[in-house]
Amino acid sequence: MKILIAGVDGYLGWSLAQHLTARGHKVAGVDNFSRRVWVEEMGSWSAIPICLMKERLPAFKKRFGRELRFWEGDLRDYDLVERVFREFQPDAVVHLGECPSAPYSMMSAKHAAFVQTNNIVGTLNLIFAMRDICPQAHLVKLGTMGEYGTPPVDIPEGFFDAEFRGKKYPKAVFPRQAGSWYHWSKVHSSNNIMFACKIWGLRATDIMQGVVFGTRIDAMGNDKQLLTRLDFDQAFGTAINRFCCQAVIGHPLTPFGKGHQKRGFLPLRDSMQCLTLALENPSRNGEYRVFNQFEEVYDITELALKIKKVAGGLGLPVEVRNLENPRKEMEEHYYNPDHRHLLDLGYRPTHDIETEMEVMLLDLMKCRDRIEAKKDVLIPDVQWDGRREKVRFV
Amino acid sequence: MKILIAGVDGYLGWSLAQHLTARGHKVAGVDNFSRRVWVEEMGSWSAIPICLMKERLPAFKKRFGRELRFWEGDLRDYDLVERVFREFQPDAVVHLGECPSAPYSMMSAKHAAFVQTNNIVGTLNLIFAMRDICPQAHLVKLGTMGEYGTPPVDIPEGFFDAEFRGKKYPKAVFPRQAGSWYHWSKVHSSNNIMFACKIWGLRATDIMQGVVFGTRIDAMGNDKQLLTRLDFDQAFGTAINRFCCQAVIGHPLTPFGKGHQKRGFLPLRDSMQCLTLALENPSRNGEYRVFNQFEEVYDITELALKIKKVAGGLGLPVEVRNLENPRKEMEEHYYNPDHRHLLDLGYRPTHDIETEMEVMLLDLMKCRDRIEAKKDVLIPDVQWDGRREKVRFV
Repeated sequence: MKILIAGVDGYLGWSLAQHLTARGHKVAGVDNFSRRVWVEEMGSWSAIPICLMKERLPAFKKRFGRELRFWEGDLRDYDLVERVFREFQPDAVVHLGECPSAPYSMMSAKHAAFVQTNNIVGTLNLIFAMRDICPQAHLVKLGTMGEYGTPPVDIPEGFFDAEFRGKKYPKAVFPRQAGSWYHWSKVHSSNNIMFACKIWGLRATDIMQGVVFGTRIDAMGNDKQLLTRLDFDQAFGTAINRFCCQAVIGHPLTPFGKGHQKRGFLPLRDSMQCLTLALENPSRNGEYRVFNQFEEVYDITELALKIKKVAGGLGLPVEVRNLENPRKEMEEHYYNPDHRHLLDLGYRPTHDIETEMEVMLLDLMKCRDRIEAKKDVLIPDVQWDGRREKVRFV
Repeated sequence: MKILIAGVDGYLGWSLAQHLTARGHKVAGVDNFSRRVWVEEMGSWSAIPICLMKERLPAFKKRFGRELRFWEGDLRDYDLVERVFREFQPDAVVHLGECPSAPYSMMSAKHAAFVQTNNIVGTLNLIFAMRDICPQAHLVKLGTMGEYGTPPVDIPEGFFDAEFRGKKYPKAVFPRQAGSWYHWSKVHSSNNIMFACKIWGLRATDIMQGVVFGTRIDAMGNDKQLLTRLDFDQAFGTAINRFCCQAVIGHPLTPFGKGHQKRGFLPLRDSMQCLTLALENPSRNGEYRVFNQFEEVYDITELALKIKKVAGGLGLPVEVRNLENPRKEMEEHYYNPDHRHLLDLGYRPTHDIETEMEVMLLDLMKCRDRIEAKKDVLIPDVQWDGRREKVRFV
């Protein structure tokens, strides 16, 4: 299958290009290297040193015996998107090319506007290019479990049979309650994609992905030039990745607030497995389907304690110390999302989260100096009320 | 009350500035005259000749004995928005400054992206300026009944008590199913505003407005320099306004498809009355409330026949001839939206729609030449499937 990855230079994109190529797919990618710029803006860098695309491409060819076709460009530029589609004629498009940070979007009016327009326009441009150039292509769009928020009921996969005043509303959109301008940008694009499938008969899978963690996938082998980035700053680092970086330099692990937020998590290798299942089992023409993609729900403090335990076993003593919560979110809540669709397609969750954490810690121990050099970014200062002020330990 | 009108040069904005000033409010406005440019892009102009802002302002002062303070600028420019807020310190903000056209948004990838970013960023900038400069101000935001689409159940005002697997989800967001990129832009902003109220304690009233029609309100008197625009092109003209323009030049009245689409309608004077009720009865701090704002639900063909009758009485014989539907929408459907909130606040609907139509036709008969000169715009060519091709009579 010819698969175009938008955002191929990112954490998931660079991994997925390798995973899919190893499975025999013909992969191409587009990126404008924004992620590197945003992380720099946050005063940080990838804990794991990563190569430039011009170094990545030859290493990729050497390992997989295949070119990764690459276009440098901005998805907000429709002429660029159109050119890529005409030249590559993809069978599937994986859209990972968005700004994926809640805190980044909460920094100012300009950041909020940037994140929403960047994410919405990039997605619109992909949809229009599909309509006009490859109407049979299948869009696999990365959304987030954060689109739903934390409602007091189970969370279905996108839709539910609603009822109002005794009348049925079958397959109604399940109410979304996102928690940041970034998360809302994902809701906005979900709505846009649903509409495009309805009026133009496009097909799409919208992935409500849990929080991903992990430093590697099998396809990378031991080639340093093929490693993917791993961020630990407040804006682009995700919970487990940040905790592991904290652990290797002896910094306390820092749940926010009461620390009983529950979220779905999955290892990087499971994310690759799930995205591949979605790609290899496309939705039908005109079908917009939603997958909740995670391995299991965990409580943040429970995860921190697991990492403390695994780190201890590696001779890395760490404590768990809660920080004031810079976000506005519920810190104790009901959380029970469905995640049946991917299991039905054959997803085999890793489950052994502690082994995964150990692999990560071993990888990150080699990067101790890089984390130490930027450790100031481990304590957040972007607050949901608009203040820019470091939170304190509670 | 000090009221800032974003989009003060538009159809509703220019009318509202007069209506509110006549009631004793202190009104200011901001606009970048985009509406004039967009209508020109559609090959059209206002049926009723309108003055430039530099002519409008002295006429306004002459009639009302008060300056209308005005800033020329783009709401997408946060620095401009911030400056206006600092200088005027509004108690309330009425946001009418969006691109209000479904067909315009459906013309191309670039138009879709423009309409969504223009509408979303303008709204975000207003919200941020409220947070940082006037957190007690009340936002009255113009949305559209089109956010809901045409579901098979009654439509509440924004929220409903949902239930899933036996558990209650009180005050859940009612599922939206908008019908164009423009209508979705309104949904996106509704979601953004709801979020801002939740995290920052702002207050907002989100108006799901029906289709407005009418050429005048009492506050305008007979001053030609105070008249508001009236569009009749496919993109910026609304149903009754277009039908009346067609009637005065003897062009057939043109429902789309089967012509049994049902929508909520309201005369311009009722829109003024309702917006004023919302402004004078603000929501509480942190409250995001939704009003469905229309006088009554009508079937499009029923309206065309009413206009035919009224026009006949004025010696304007016209026929009703259905056009192929350029849109993708249900042409026969259930439609029963609530509209209790405004009635509870004291809204007295006009009801006498035929008299309103007669006033319009008499006003528009004086503009026959201007409609005749651009009559090519009366038949739409922007199709929802992406084609740009005039639809035919069925």
